[in-house]
Amino acid sequence: MLRDYMLTLDSELGLDKNENPFELPSSPREEMRKLISSIDLNRYPDPLALKLRNKLSARLNYPQECIVVGNGGDEILSMLFTAYVKPGDKVLTTYPCFSEYNRLCRIFGAEQHVLHLGFHENEITLDVEQLLDAVARISPKLILLDNPHNPTGMFLDPAVLLETAKLSPCPFVIDEAYVEFATKSSLDVLDKNIPSNLCILRTLSKAWGLAGLRVGYALCSEDIAMKLLDVKSPFNVNVVSQEIACIMLEYDEWMKSRVYSIRFLRDKFIEEVNELESFHAYPSQGNFVLVRTDIDREYMSTILKEKGIRLNMLELDVNGFTWMRISIGKEDELNYVIQVFRSIVRQPNVEFVIA
Amino acid sequence: MLRDYMLTLDSELGLDKNENPFELPSSPREEMRKLISSIDLNRYPDPLALKLRNKLSARLNYPQECIVVGNGGDEILSMLFTAYVKPGDKVLTTYPCFSEYNRLCRIFGAEQHVLHLGFHENEITLDVEQLLDAVARISPKLILLDNPHNPTGMFLDPAVLLETAKLSPCPFVIDEAYVEFATKSSLDVLDKNIPSNLCILRTLSKAWGLAGLRVGYALCSEDIAMKLLDVKSPFNVNVVSQEIACIMLEYDEWMKSRVYSIRFLRDKFIEEVNELESFHAYPSQGNFVLVRTDIDREYMSTILKEKGIRLNMLELDVNGFTWMRISIGKEDELNYVIQVFRSIVRQPNVEFVIA
Repeated sequence: MLRDYMLTLDSELGLDKNENPFELPSSPREEMRKLISSIDLNRYPDPLALKLRNKLSARLNYPQECIVVGNGGDEILSMLFTAYVKPGDKVLTTYPCFSEYNRLCRIFGAEQHVLHLGFHENEITLDVEQLLDAVARISPKLILLDNPHNPTGMFLDPAVLLETAKLSPCPFVIDEAYVEFATKSSLDVLDKNIPSNLCILRTLSKAWGLAGLRVGYALCSEDIAMKLLDVKSPFNVNVVSQEIACIMLEYDEWMKSRVYSIRFLRDKFIEEVNELESFHAYPSQGNFVLVRTDIDREYMSTILKEKGIRLNMLELDVNGFTWMRISIGKEDELNYVIQVFRSIVRQPNVEFVIA
Repeated sequence: MLRDYMLTLDSELGLDKNENPFELPSSPREEMRKLISSIDLNRYPDPLALKLRNKLSARLNYPQECIVVGNGGDEILSMLFTAYVKPGDKVLTTYPCFSEYNRLCRIFGAEQHVLHLGFHENEITLDVEQLLDAVARISPKLILLDNPHNPTGMFLDPAVLLETAKLSPCPFVIDEAYVEFATKSSLDVLDKNIPSNLCILRTLSKAWGLAGLRVGYALCSEDIAMKLLDVKSPFNVNVVSQEIACIMLEYDEWMKSRVYSIRFLRDKFIEEVNELESFHAYPSQGNFVLVRTDIDREYMSTILKEKGIRLNMLELDVNGFTWMRISIGKEDELNYVIQVFRSIVRQPNVEFVIA
């Protein structure tokens, strides 16, 4: 059966990028074909993406003038650095965190300060008191926190995060790229008064299944929106992405049903991993799961490569374990991963990290 | 007849953005519809845009590893600033120049030094000796020159520019966004040895008529390519733009015939403007024309607005004239502009800038 599944793979099984495994349904595809027939590609896109921002505003009940659209969430992160971070400025993140935060700190010459997460037997934690201490001690120019947290899947109470944001002296970015897979979002607890330093990041790449299109957005204060629009490249989101995003946002039911499937498959996968010897999966509110194993990293990578599975093998120096972030794919894909894991621990000559 | 043309305009006539007025033919549209039917929008685009870079490499006979693709030429400019310009660093441009250069200097906190072009009765010039002097005197961290020059349409001999690049101590950017409308390009005179500080910018927004898609590229040295790839956002060019660009690059004949039409219409438009009293059009090698008039700027703007014409009214403080950059549209659109200009000078109460 394992071999059979492999035969149906025309390439590697990619569970390394936290993509939505479900392809688009036929109905929006038909709308997109009509769009392509009529769209004026020779004209520049709307620099303000007004139609899309209006749609997001109505959907989220958030003021349109406080929404900024980017060429993926990545571009909004880049705009935040351009607007707020000069070489030598301090930026506060967690360790670990979304790899793009590290990269941007390096590129913009920022001094990155990290708050280490607590890695416990069955849970991963962030100490909010420590976070507040760090903010007060370091006086950063930018704070970046992903919630649900990437790559751990940890989730902080949005109400607590918002309170922390209010006590911070600089833009406080809550990166909610994966929030549709979680039980709650910042918007559920935000009242009408948007803190002037708040910036919530969202994307259509994950729950909405549009990673290829590059559409992300910031829900922020008017102050931050004006700063971001000022540094934004004039025509940053192409016309096809703006239009397809508007089409897809009408397919709310499709999105939700896919998100529920992914949440179900995620929780099932966690349970199954935790039945295996030598592997442990942490609880997650994202569309991915952090797994630790005491099997040697090199050995693990070799086997996965042999079996045609791409996972995100983390460069994570915690407790001597091998750490992997596994995206939630389709059911048979996850079953295949479980089978490969099972086959590894059954082999007589498995190499362990820790004796 | 003037009134008749206006009645066919469903909105304003936009000749302010140097777009290609010709829409795409039906054959690539059909290919694009097929693409939309099958493309995996839920997967991230190729971060290295290898298929597109290979196509560009083959087409231009330029090494693939020295090509970088961006979300429009604008993003490549932004990457150049991120890679090479720290706050307080000097950047050398001309005055006037592409407005984005000014904006990026401001955003990145650069000290912009400008070399003034010579505005003569019938031509606009750049003194290459002065350019070399300025480079030596200022020691900039980045040099940006558009050729054909925006907004003037002036064109410098690419061989001379390349020689100047070789004598410069920092990245020397030759922005060839409009080069397909010119008689010659840097690539025509570049030998196999690419200067290590050379960066030629190109775009599919103008001649190729894909402004809405946002695809630009740099043809540079391997040094610069590596720096740009390092600062580049991982998934900067979306999958639809990558694929449609690959489709369109096969329609070389279509592109060329449209470019020839535009060059023909441009030269005809220049002649016609120069037959009008109070207006003067400069020679141009772009898909736009710089026009000066002694008619008052405010008055001119009011009339154009009334007549439903959007031109680029330049903030250009030269010789007391009113300056406009006019994009080359379709024949009837340009005829309409000429008629409006003619109607202005015939009015008894025209307001002139200069007595």
